[in-house]
Amino acid sequence: MFEYLINLPTKVLFGFGKLALLGEEAKKLGSKALLMYDPFVSNYPVLNTVQGLLLENGLEVVCFDDVSPNPRHSVIDAAVQLCNFENCDLVIAVGGGSAIDSAKAVAIVAVNGGNTWDYTERENEYVVRPTKGKIPIITIPTTAGTGTEVTPYAVINNTDIHFKATIISEICFPTVSIVDPSLMLTMPPHLTALTGIDAFAHAFESYINRNSTPFSSMVSLEAIRLYAQSIETCVNNPTDRHARENMALASTLGGLAIAHSSTTLPHAIGQPLSGLTDAPHGGSIAACIQQIIRWTLPQGKEKFAKVAETMKPSIQSLTTDEKANLLPSIIDELFGRILHGEKETMSGYGLKDDEIDRLADTVLSCYIMDCKGHPKMPDRKDIVNIIRGSM
Amino acid sequence: MFEYLINLPTKVLFGFGKLALLGEEAKKLGSKALLMYDPFVSNYPVLNTVQGLLLENGLEVVCFDDVSPNPRHSVIDAAVQLCNFENCDLVIAVGGGSAIDSAKAVAIVAVNGGNTWDYTERENEYVVRPTKGKIPIITIPTTAGTGTEVTPYAVINNTDIHFKATIISEICFPTVSIVDPSLMLTMPPHLTALTGIDAFAHAFESYINRNSTPFSSMVSLEAIRLYAQSIETCVNNPTDRHARENMALASTLGGLAIAHSSTTLPHAIGQPLSGLTDAPHGGSIAACIQQIIRWTLPQGKEKFAKVAETMKPSIQSLTTDEKANLLPSIIDELFGRILHGEKETMSGYGLKDDEIDRLADTVLSCYIMDCKGHPKMPDRKDIVNIIRGSM
Repeated sequence: MFEYLINLPTKVLFGFGKLALLGEEAKKLGSKALLMYDPFVSNYPVLNTVQGLLLENGLEVVCFDDVSPNPRHSVIDAAVQLCNFENCDLVIAVGGGSAIDSAKAVAIVAVNGGNTWDYTERENEYVVRPTKGKIPIITIPTTAGTGTEVTPYAVINNTDIHFKATIISEICFPTVSIVDPSLMLTMPPHLTALTGIDAFAHAFESYINRNSTPFSSMVSLEAIRLYAQSIETCVNNPTDRHARENMALASTLGGLAIAHSSTTLPHAIGQPLSGLTDAPHGGSIAACIQQIIRWTLPQGKEKFAKVAETMKPSIQSLTTDEKANLLPSIIDELFGRILHGEKETMSGYGLKDDEIDRLADTVLSCYIMDCKGHPKMPDRKDIVNIIRGSM
Repeated sequence: MFEYLINLPTKVLFGFGKLALLGEEAKKLGSKALLMYDPFVSNYPVLNTVQGLLLENGLEVVCFDDVSPNPRHSVIDAAVQLCNFENCDLVIAVGGGSAIDSAKAVAIVAVNGGNTWDYTERENEYVVRPTKGKIPIITIPTTAGTGTEVTPYAVINNTDIHFKATIISEICFPTVSIVDPSLMLTMPPHLTALTGIDAFAHAFESYINRNSTPFSSMVSLEAIRLYAQSIETCVNNPTDRHARENMALASTLGGLAIAHSSTTLPHAIGQPLSGLTDAPHGGSIAACIQQIIRWTLPQGKEKFAKVAETMKPSIQSLTTDEKANLLPSIIDELFGRILHGEKETMSGYGLKDDEIDRLADTVLSCYIMDCKGHPKMPDRKDIVNIIRGSM
């Protein structure tokens, strides 16, 4: 999909109260929905609301709540079986990236057959590419971070081999996404901070990507601006509606940015870290992004300066060099405040010293595209150093 | 389509040389193309290139060059007949808004049957809405102005009754649009200026629209920034590739903006003026937009200030009021320079004094949605005054 400057087949309904339109959208698309959600969603009223809206509009609902963080291939295969056994003609996801990515995979595999893992992109391995379309998907994100509601990606975790890989296909774009910030008002502060770092990372990595386009850059910078303006308020005053709305939009725009020009080194290292250790995705990015910015800095001054002034408009009158050099401290200070001084580290997430080499190998073999998009191409030693510095 | 925050089903290929991908894209979509173009396009090498690319890739080509500015319903009906007679399964448009809007209409009417005019939106009249999809469309704009390559609109001119109306339908979005700035390098200065004013007007009107969204606003401001930065260079140094690329993007972004939050008063007056007098679309906008900005100014200060500082970043430190008050002169001066002092007027386009009342009535009856979106709702007297001021 990167050959296109602009392409967003997903229809995005955005704003407070937009969840109310679910029934109407759903009945245009199907009559029996497989409803997939993270188990924790059961504790919130959103699940009842969603079920109520679907039933009121005459849809049948089949529930599947066995979704885990870093969604597992085997669990998705089970959901595919349920979907086909029940003849569902619509898949609806409520939750964070795990629920939504699982739903994307189910919608594709249920129609195209076979096993979920076979559809993921892996270097030098056999990859099945969907040719028969998909079951329509509606996504309803409850976090502001992944942006997966507007991307052609579904990240899948193979727990047999501790390995994460991604389905990349235009048909992975959800049919409709309802981004209703009211569902995010109850997100706890630490989850708000970590998922927010993921949203920031998408916008930032897409912006510094060698393959960025004028369209993706515009979207990235707006996401970064909204993020810098609103994340602290979301963490410290979780029910602030304006800030939550801004962060919801920052997250969706972050997704739109990586749909057009992909992630770079932080995701190249963070993704396989989550595969190895089951670290939450936002945390795995938070653990390495500051190291990576410092290491990259000499190579990316112009863009880093633009990010710095977008985050902190008061530095506008400084020189490009001065602005770029301020970026690490702007990010350190902001992350320090939203994580309340707690530091995300790779060792904290359970990475052992003797796993560093394996992680570095995975980055260079399986995430080479992200490495190549990074403004400074890392060699193996660079990656090992970055990982060591993030322990 | 306005219920969605973001929706762009069109795949946009953008950049110098991207026309080379036409054959590849076309053969994915069909095998026999109805190729529609403005007659003047025949004078440029682009037409041969397009035909060559299609033939090389095994497509058959049926030509239709009877496209006129302000595309006529009867001509489109003839093209529909040709399309069906020849069993074309793809429509390709090369040219300005007229060729592209004609192609959109043909692609819909050829599948859904009946007459083109019946599909246009007209107050209190019977409107046929397409239900059977469309023939795939590829658009190749050769001007930077209409942005119609990314909108769900096709403006049709009924020359029997001197009336312009618009087909508005999600299926009106082209399938693929190839925006290749190299096709714009030969655009004459005056056409560059007038079509450029249309691009600016889309971005500006969408931005000040009461129904603007955070997404449409982001897109609008980027289009305005690119326009202000590049239009003079395009006029004075037509082969400047960077400026042409910026203007091509400004135009596409302007289209994306009005696809999400529509036009306002300048288009509400300019469109029916073209219906009455056959004035070129950009010219009809240029003739009234300055009047309208002055008349609106007290009501739209915040947004006008943002537009002013986007066009002229050096005024950033002024107050909101000061910036807003500068907007009319910023625009006057810029338009003066790109039109080389020539003033577009409604009387110059042939509007007679005794037609002013009829034009005002049409604005309020048929373009009421654009009026309602305008930050200051005009009454009949206001519209008459604006038209008189634009004579």
